[in-house]
Amino acid sequence: MDMQNLQNQLEEVQSQLETLKKGAAENKVAIIAFSGDMDKVLASFVIATGAVAMGMEAVMFFTFWGTPVLRDKNKSAGGKDLMGKLFGAMLPKGAGAVKSSKMNMGGMGTAMMKAVMKKKNIASLEEMIALAEELGVRIYVCEMSMDMMGFKREEFIDYKGLDFAGVATFLAEAQNAKVQLFV
Amino acid sequence: MDMQNLQNQLEEVQSQLETLKKGAAENKVAIIAFSGDMDKVLASFVIATGAVAMGMEAVMFFTFWGTPVLRDKNKSAGGKDLMGKLFGAMLPKGAGAVKSSKMNMGGMGTAMMKAVMKKKNIASLEEMIALAEELGVRIYVCEMSMDMMGFKREEFIDYKGLDFAGVATFLAEAQNAKVQLFV
Amino acid sequence: MDMQNLQNQLEEVQSQLETLKKGAAENKVAIIAFSGDMDKVLASFVIATGAVAMGMEAVMFFTFWGTPVLRDKNKSAGGKDLMGKLFGAMLPKGAGAVKSSKMNMGGMGTAMMKAVMKKKNIASLEEMIALAEELGVRIYVCEMSMDMMGFKREEFIDYKGLDFAGVATFLAEAQNAKVQLFV
Repeated sequence: MDMQNLQNQLEEVQSQLETLKKGAAENKVAIIAFSGDMDKVLASFVIATGAVAMGMEAVMFFTFWGTPVLRDKNKSAGGKDLMGKLFGAMLPKGAGAVKSSKMNMGGMGTAMMKAVMKKKNIASLEEMIALAEELGVRIYVCEMSMDMMGFKREEFIDYKGLDFAGVATFLAEAQNAKVQLFV
Repeated sequence: MDMQNLQNQLEEVQSQLETLKKGAAENKVAIIAFSGDMDKVLASFVIATGAVAMGMEAVMFFTFWGTPVLRDKNKSAGGKDLMGKLFGAMLPKGAGAVKSSKMNMGGMGTAMMKAVMKKKNIASLEEMIALAEELGVRIYVCEMSMDMMGFKREEFIDYKGLDFAGVATFLAEAQNAKVQLFV
Repeated sequence: MDMQNLQNQLEEVQSQLETLKKGAAENKVAIIAFSGDMDKVLASFVIATGAVAMGMEAVMFFTFWGTPVLRDKNKSAGGKDLMGKLFGAMLPKGAGAVKSSKMNMGGMGTAMMKAVMKKKNIASLEEMIALAEELGVRIYVCEMSMDMMGFKREEFIDYKGLDFAGVATFLAEAQNAKVQLFV
């Protein structure tokens, strides 16, 4: 046992430490917003903004039924085929049009819930999206879902930090997040 | 290269190691019980109790439709406004009243499932909750959901380890858990 | 401060490093496939195969309504009791028979979605399962769900890497995965 030997061991330890540090999870929440139900999308934004308020980073991946929630009700896109037009017409156009997964009752339950939220000073979905933007919650819109449903980029809301991506891009982010949720 | 230098490097390594250890995830499962469907709540409890049986810690956060599942059918609360009364009346009062998300068929499917579970010695939801309490599964009830639905603390079941909290409290727990699930 | 002392400290550091390395999460995605809805099962497979394509490992646990999705439409099993026969008849028999959670509209919406996916060259659920097998995505079928629904092993698809297990087996895998999702 001599000093050279000690030095060698120490360097090995330092190298292993670097590997561990690189693999360590980032203080980040990664949410797959699959559902297009008002209550679930709202829950996603409550978690994402709550995470940022706690000093975490937050990133959301809107896919399948979550995708149309981010459409802008005042925007539209031309050049769609029949299927694209059908999906466009049948799915909710933006956060103001989504329905609750429970107690919707032909829209009455959703309206009731919105009224209660307003009275109780709970932020609406539109307000939550604005808050998320302000707090720097990053959003990806799933390109495969857009392709399937015939949505075009110009139909989506203006949101600083919104990008279009595939599942691989999201997984690369989620992989190193401390928290991942499929909503 | 001398001994003082080696000592300094070693101290640096020790300090980095401490940081890594502090950031390392705890052997814990954190479940967001958003759904109020019998099958999903049951799955949450199967996972939570299974985790404890494996030596992990388990904590659940009941929010939105999961909230009324923990009401005690023999308790009630006064002083509710109209909306609170409506939510109270429309949502299931406790674990015995929840319905399956599939094959409910006006309650027949839920009854059938309960009968099968009994016959196969699969624990009912009420039994799972008792088991979870015994095993030390901790439960948070979401304060925002209570506020929205007009639920009061005195309506909830007696459960050692049940507390009322906001999303931040839960996120602080989930952040360092090895497993997080949104059910 | 002497060399023996340095050596002792270094050994302590090495030991702590080993502990940290053992506890470090594996580059793995663990998915609980609870839902039997076409869209959600498809999303699970997109994530699982996408993860493998990125060099991650992927393991899925099919439970509750996810269980019948893996039945082989050309296989059947005898010796079932009445309840088992009922579940067998009422639940979809394999990936070709599952329905979308939204816009199913008596099957029309599901058919429409399948047509769009075909046209857009998005893999069908059956193709995704074949791809997952090829990529080495491992699958567990939940034994408690099989017991409850009366399913037998011989009813399931041929899939290299499919096994039957309880929740504990899956949790032991999920515990050390970087990503866990409840779908």
